[in-house]
Amino acid sequence: MSPTVSAPAPFRAVDLIRKKRDGSALTPAEIEYLVDSYTKGTIPDYQIAAWLMTVVVRGMTREETAALTHSMLHSGEVLDLSFLPAKTVDKHSTGGVGDKTSLILAPLVAAGGLFVPMISGRGLGHTGGTLDKLEAIPGFNVSLSIPEFHRVLKTGGAAMIGQTSEIAPADRKLYALRDVTGTVESPHLICASIMSKKLAEGTDAMVLDVKTGSGAFMKKEEDAVFLAELMVETGERIGKKMVALITNMDQPLGRMVGNATEVYESIEVLKGGGPDDLRELCLELASWMFYLGRAAKTTADGKNLATQLISSGKAFAKFRQLVELHSGDVSTIDNPALLPAAQRRVDVTSSRGGYVTSIQCEHIGTACVVLGGGREKKEDSVDPAVGIIVHKKVGDKVAIGEPLCTILCHSDEQASRARKLIEESYELNAAPPAYKKSLVHRVIHKREH
Amino acid sequence: MSPTVSAPAPFRAVDLIRKKRDGSALTPAEIEYLVDSYTKGTIPDYQIAAWLMTVVVRGMTREETAALTHSMLHSGEVLDLSFLPAKTVDKHSTGGVGDKTSLILAPLVAAGGLFVPMISGRGLGHTGGTLDKLEAIPGFNVSLSIPEFHRVLKTGGAAMIGQTSEIAPADRKLYALRDVTGTVESPHLICASIMSKKLAEGTDAMVLDVKTGSGAFMKKEEDAVFLAELMVETGERIGKKMVALITNMDQPLGRMVGNATEVYESIEVLKGGGPDDLRELCLELASWMFYLGRAAKTTADGKNLATQLISSGKAFAKFRQLVELHSGDVSTIDNPALLPAAQRRVDVTSSRGGYVTSIQCEHIGTACVVLGGGREKKEDSVDPAVGIIVHKKVGDKVAIGEPLCTILCHSDEQASRARKLIEESYELNAAPPAYKKSLVHRVIHKREH
Repeated sequence: MSPTVSAPAPFRAVDLIRKKRDGSALTPAEIEYLVDSYTKGTIPDYQIAAWLMTVVVRGMTREETAALTHSMLHSGEVLDLSFLPAKTVDKHSTGGVGDKTSLILAPLVAAGGLFVPMISGRGLGHTGGTLDKLEAIPGFNVSLSIPEFHRVLKTGGAAMIGQTSEIAPADRKLYALRDVTGTVESPHLICASIMSKKLAEGTDAMVLDVKTGSGAFMKKEEDAVFLAELMVETGERIGKKMVALITNMDQPLGRMVGNATEVYESIEVLKGGGPDDLRELCLELASWMFYLGRAAKTTADGKNLATQLISSGKAFAKFRQLVELHSGDVSTIDNPALLPAAQRRVDVTSSRGGYVTSIQCEHIGTACVVLGGGREKKEDSVDPAVGIIVHKKVGDKVAIGEPLCTILCHSDEQASRARKLIEESYELNAAPPAYKKSLVHRVIHKREH
Repeated sequence: MSPTVSAPAPFRAVDLIRKKRDGSALTPAEIEYLVDSYTKGTIPDYQIAAWLMTVVVRGMTREETAALTHSMLHSGEVLDLSFLPAKTVDKHSTGGVGDKTSLILAPLVAAGGLFVPMISGRGLGHTGGTLDKLEAIPGFNVSLSIPEFHRVLKTGGAAMIGQTSEIAPADRKLYALRDVTGTVESPHLICASIMSKKLAEGTDAMVLDVKTGSGAFMKKEEDAVFLAELMVETGERIGKKMVALITNMDQPLGRMVGNATEVYESIEVLKGGGPDDLRELCLELASWMFYLGRAAKTTADGKNLATQLISSGKAFAKFRQLVELHSGDVSTIDNPALLPAAQRRVDVTSSRGGYVTSIQCEHIGTACVVLGGGREKKEDSVDPAVGIIVHKKVGDKVAIGEPLCTILCHSDEQASRARKLIEESYELNAAPPAYKKSLVHRVIHKREH
């Protein structure tokens, strides 16, 4: 062998693939080797594809999942927020339809004295994305540099940006490979992907909103619980305070689906109004953010604090400040009628009477994509002005000819496919549903903090 | 979409990976799509790596295995031997130590009036290869062109070559990928790899010698039987007459391990001598080749024919002719003392007395590799002159100081590591082994032909 300056590789990728294939767990050092070498490009796609498939089929131990998350997290920059004078906390949702809680929680929790550094995503498929919604506010800039992000965060108590190329590059590379090799559907890989990006925010605590139901990625509650427990334990192993709420996504959250429409509804909640389910979920999530961030002794105290911050006007004032700090046009906040809104309004009326017993929620999300309010492919652009107003939700009584939803669009042609999706998603019966599903199905909170 | 001249792909690779991952069998058309596209380079390595891993973990149905073999076979040239005036038959061994049966069977079965088109391999790891052994005969040319191969086959009744680049290119590409992605160890993939290459010979029938024991790739008999049944059924589905013999590889076959040494021992058997186990296995395999090739009504008749062809000198004469047709130096066949032979002979003597109760046969093969008589890597060259003569086999009585083996080498230094491997591979006990394992453990022959 000729002398060389670089150290020999500590492992052979093929040996690690075979080890995992045969059912043994890999050590943190072995996982770090795979992730690090793949990110650097010294292990090829085909070996990582084979390893990912072993993970999908064999699963991972909790230790492996945490090690994978840790390696992916440290493949890039992790924000250092130690310069801030109070605790930092964020919330992450696994995605749903009409889920605008981030827009409400960031100002609400910042108004309570904590810092909320939010790195958010864009909409994909039937689910919306926080960045798209924020950008419905004219001028709102989600592409802050890290120094600007720090400044906005310190000044306003919250800051919202998209994922930068410095954050978790291993996840970007792995996700692109998973997408084409049939290795997306693994709770362990999903957990590592989500957590490696969110933990890069460097917060002290994280509240997870894990959706389940017809509008969620996890249709089955057991799958949502499995993923939630995995994420909570992974975060805790990496030193974060964690809680996960398993929440209902069997119908859109609130009444607005879209982008500008969801900003509109967020302002309603921040002003003390808005639909019950949306307000209630925001108060629940805020209560845990305050509790984990030590701004409240109990979650009940946290909920009281959140309620009071809304009724006092402090939460809305904070939202207005944040819009300003992100270069957004505050006149649209002061007068939401100025937000982008498609002028054509098409009612989807009911062909019969009865009670709404279920809504195929994913179809409502897809209807919004069809209107141009979401993305079928990552490259698509989003129309902030279109959307759906949901008039009838599960349990509501409907008369023949009464509108179920109203579509905001630019033309009748655009509305026709969306209308069909909406009509098909409603199930009506003579009797109301036997019981109403609770909004928060379960709280997963492993340790006393 | 812009108009295009090429037809859209009938499948998406990622969908097929997911289907197999979730436990469904792929259809022959789906498998054909994967193999064909991969061979052409329109599906990348990473997708095939993921698919191969699903096959390793989920297995394959018999139909899938046959479809995969069929697609790999037809990725390249399949010889057309219909110009020959009699049936064609070949034998394939899964590899062992001292396994020189091909050198004996080709002339023996050709002497019986059948045609034997042999596409053979080279040694790798602890097992030897027919091509390396043939090349120990000075001048012997295993690189015939296809027209030359046809001419030798028609004239001599047998012809021996290595795999050409025209044969089963899919297998070459797949095997290289399997080697680095932990997807070698699948009986289904092993079956398809072996059979796609062997069936390219275009024979009417195939006798498989599936080795089991400490010197075989399949250490456990159940694994050998599983693979054998898979290969027999795969061959039959592709229209071939098939049989598999599960044979013992718990000790070297015969007494010679190496290359020129194995030619020497093959000549002994062709002349009516040689060790009992080697001669007996050749007669068994030949009896099935004659039976499947319709040169004998029963395997018993086939065995009588083989015995008679040896005793009459016809088998040896045929061997001499074949060597001549392959440009080999027949003087070394007429006088085997002229074959290459290392001059240094080192006895490995026993440090104690007793009966040989077992031999770690793989270590004997490795000892030959250490001497230079085999390959650790594909690129290595092979020394025809070195080898091991095995004096003591399982059941033999040994006195203190008596030689277990003799090493043929070029220097004492070269011998020292081989000696250690040989010493460690012998297990001696005061009593002889309770029972002697039969040479042929089982015959797998599914249908009446």
